[in-house]
Amino acid sequence: MNYKVMCRFFSMVCLAETVFLLPPIGISIFDGTHASTLGFAITVAISALLCIFFKLLSNNATGTLYAKEGFVCVSASWILISLVGCLPFVISGEIPHFVDALFEIVSGFTTTGASILSDVESLSRAALYWRSFSHWVGGMGVLVFLLAIAPGEKRSSGFTMHLFRAESPGPEVGKLVPKMRQTALFLYVIYIVLTILNFIFLSFGDMDAFEAFCTALGTAGTGGFGVKNDSIASYSPYIQYVTTVFMLLFGVNFSCYYLLLLKQVKAVLRDEELRLYVGIVVSSILVITLHTFFTAHMYSTFEETFRHAAFQVASVISTTGYSTTNFDMWPSVSKGILMLLMFTGACAGSTCGGIKCGRILLLFKSLRRNIHQLVHPQQVQVIRVNGNAMGEKVVANTNAYLSAYMIILLVSFILVSFDGFSLMTNFSAVLSCFNNIGPGFEAVGPMENFGGFGVLSKIVLIFDMLAGRLEIFPMLLTFSRSVWKRN
Amino acid sequence: MNYKVMCRFFSMVCLAETVFLLPPIGISIFDGTHASTLGFAITVAISALLCIFFKLLSNNATGTLYAKEGFVCVSASWILISLVGCLPFVISGEIPHFVDALFEIVSGFTTTGASILSDVESLSRAALYWRSFSHWVGGMGVLVFLLAIAPGEKRSSGFTMHLFRAESPGPEVGKLVPKMRQTALFLYVIYIVLTILNFIFLSFGDMDAFEAFCTALGTAGTGGFGVKNDSIASYSPYIQYVTTVFMLLFGVNFSCYYLLLLKQVKAVLRDEELRLYVGIVVSSILVITLHTFFTAHMYSTFEETFRHAAFQVASVISTTGYSTTNFDMWPSVSKGILMLLMFTGACAGSTCGGIKCGRILLLFKSLRRNIHQLVHPQQVQVIRVNGNAMGEKVVANTNAYLSAYMIILLVSFILVSFDGFSLMTNFSAVLSCFNNIGPGFEAVGPMENFGGFGVLSKIVLIFDMLAGRLEIFPMLLTFSRSVWKRN
Repeated sequence: MNYKVMCRFFSMVCLAETVFLLPPIGISIFDGTHASTLGFAITVAISALLCIFFKLLSNNATGTLYAKEGFVCVSASWILISLVGCLPFVISGEIPHFVDALFEIVSGFTTTGASILSDVESLSRAALYWRSFSHWVGGMGVLVFLLAIAPGEKRSSGFTMHLFRAESPGPEVGKLVPKMRQTALFLYVIYIVLTILNFIFLSFGDMDAFEAFCTALGTAGTGGFGVKNDSIASYSPYIQYVTTVFMLLFGVNFSCYYLLLLKQVKAVLRDEELRLYVGIVVSSILVITLHTFFTAHMYSTFEETFRHAAFQVASVISTTGYSTTNFDMWPSVSKGILMLLMFTGACAGSTCGGIKCGRILLLFKSLRRNIHQLVHPQQVQVIRVNGNAMGEKVVANTNAYLSAYMIILLVSFILVSFDGFSLMTNFSAVLSCFNNIGPGFEAVGPMENFGGFGVLSKIVLIFDMLAGRLEIFPMLLTFSRSVWKRN
Repeated sequence: MNYKVMCRFFSMVCLAETVFLLPPIGISIFDGTHASTLGFAITVAISALLCIFFKLLSNNATGTLYAKEGFVCVSASWILISLVGCLPFVISGEIPHFVDALFEIVSGFTTTGASILSDVESLSRAALYWRSFSHWVGGMGVLVFLLAIAPGEKRSSGFTMHLFRAESPGPEVGKLVPKMRQTALFLYVIYIVLTILNFIFLSFGDMDAFEAFCTALGTAGTGGFGVKNDSIASYSPYIQYVTTVFMLLFGVNFSCYYLLLLKQVKAVLRDEELRLYVGIVVSSILVITLHTFFTAHMYSTFEETFRHAAFQVASVISTTGYSTTNFDMWPSVSKGILMLLMFTGACAGSTCGGIKCGRILLLFKSLRRNIHQLVHPQQVQVIRVNGNAMGEKVVANTNAYLSAYMIILLVSFILVSFDGFSLMTNFSAVLSCFNNIGPGFEAVGPMENFGGFGVLSKIVLIFDMLAGRLEIFPMLLTFSRSVWKRN
């Protein structure tokens, strides 16, 4: 382990967080919420000191970093920004308990949106902004942000690729352009443009500028922290439709937008993952709308049923977690489909969580090949996605991902059970946090919160949120012996 | 497809079933239950006619069978014996609806033990025997039975290996001795001896000979159909302990018993799968006993808590499905652990269902290798179990198994949801049938039954039971295009 170079890296992470923490200070001074000002000011000071501290430790750092250091750097950075990022809540007293505050900010950075708060409307606007901003920067990635803005020539391109791979969602990370730094920059530009568009559309509805801004940040990061206790339920149908569309848009692989900019419309339309994603979304909305409308009579009109079905499907598959209705009251089939969507997630290369359509496509194709090879043992078959042959390593990694996913899901489920909630509460709480969604069913349903869990459960769920956001391996590697063994 | 040779094979399967159906006729004549006598007699006639019919079709059959025909043969045989085996219930009127009767007998042959009956005590003894016997013969396998007794020289050894692999549980099928037929014979001898031992031990308790015999058959096959409405709950603690021990014994890989006969005790003690199995069993019993005793106060003494904990753990991990208490009333952690055990199952090469410890071991090792290779991309690592290198095909098949497992589980879950039961009822019903256990939670809990489901759900669950028993691939292959395509 090259600790010195890693420290230089952590120093940059702290610098970024220091900068991120400045706007909330401005907001709280403007609002005159003094406790909040104090909280953010002290945290900025701590973050700046940590930046200097790591800088001093990294004195005379030389040498390159390898894959394992890349993974550890990413995990450690995410833990670091969370530990610092929760301090404003603790210091201001808005979330007095440290584990609760950590849960809240990890839920923010990992774009989960699960909250321990029962009354978010009592928070200061600075705190609300910080929660929503954590979604936004966590969605595309803090390290991708650093790659986009930091001078690139100092670090080896192999290492930046490792970082990028560890932080970006999906089975295979594609560069849009040959240079890593430019790819990161392009991604952030697309991201910012879409966020602004979302903000403009929301501003035309019954939201004030601050609400629209926070909601846009949360939608872009596919996070789910709202500024109202009932999430998006009390806003107009217009706002709900706009949010539905943008949640779905932020679930699309960003390379599709890049291809659109290059006017390669055909390539986008032929993208197998996008087709699967659209297919799942359309059929889910269709089945839920019809089933809920004809069996449950919860909503007065067909339009209302459709609107809530579309919103909830978009929210769950994009792993955002906003809600407009208590879907825990839906009939079993509709709830069952939502539970399935909790597993799938949207596209790789977007800001969403979950297993992701691209990986499901790979698992299906790998399974089909396996069946084919049982029948024709002599034939060698390559798995193709969008016409490109997938390396066997990607296939093996995807299968390993599924194993790790199941193991973490089930072990967490047992650990969380100690709080004595129902099986479905525990299972859906873990599923929801691990896939970075937000709400689950029963005691963690869309109208409930995670405040009732004990400290152990909260720590388990914090781990799950981080593991889910970083796609498991960076977190597993950081806690595995083979990384820390000297060769 | 060589249909003629396949028909010769189906003719043998029908012959075996005809023989199996004779004892119930004797029982029903002895008991004077005429409806039942009629049911079994007509079914014997149908089965014998089918045997002759297939024999005629297979006239002049030549050529060998390949892997795909092996898989299709196995699936088709299981469907065939089930379609015939359910007729006695329908004809006698004891289970008048065909789909219900089919569910019951598939649940029998696949050793699931999920019943659609609310009152099994009203069944004739012939019907009770037939249900329990279906567990016994289904546990070790109808085709393994044929292999054991049929003259072996006619069929190519490659084909018998295919059959054996398709019907036997576990990631890799080992032959005990070089000859397939002798392996099958050894397995059945061990199986019969253990069943008789179980019967003798049960006879010393408060069971009459018939009850002890049926219970021994159900335990041996890890089935779960009882002869009482409350399963094993009303029997003495002695019977409950005996059943616990035998359920666990029938969950052990039968090759371990063969090694014991050869006095290779060390090899058995070093068996990694057995160690994992024992570890899971001991720790589960420990946690459930302590947690239930100290938090729930359901049972008056520690012994009683321990007995119920041990019984339920043994029943679920061996996928038997007997019960002595309503575990749906247990505290969350205990219920959660049972739910986890529903996934795991016991050892490969036993009569149990589920994913199986051997496969979990492989998935863990494959995951560990994957993590190792992320850190050290240049190193090549072989996965070893009990010191033997596992082929990459076995590893790939195990990963494909997990994908297929998840897909079938989740799709079935949605289809079953249409009956409107709770999420946990639907999920545990599918989990329980797919892993050949029997009871689930809530509306399909140990004191409930599957009679409330609609026809669609029952057909889905019938498919799941068969797919689970045959370890997915034979069923998937039978319904996949690549098998039926002409090359």
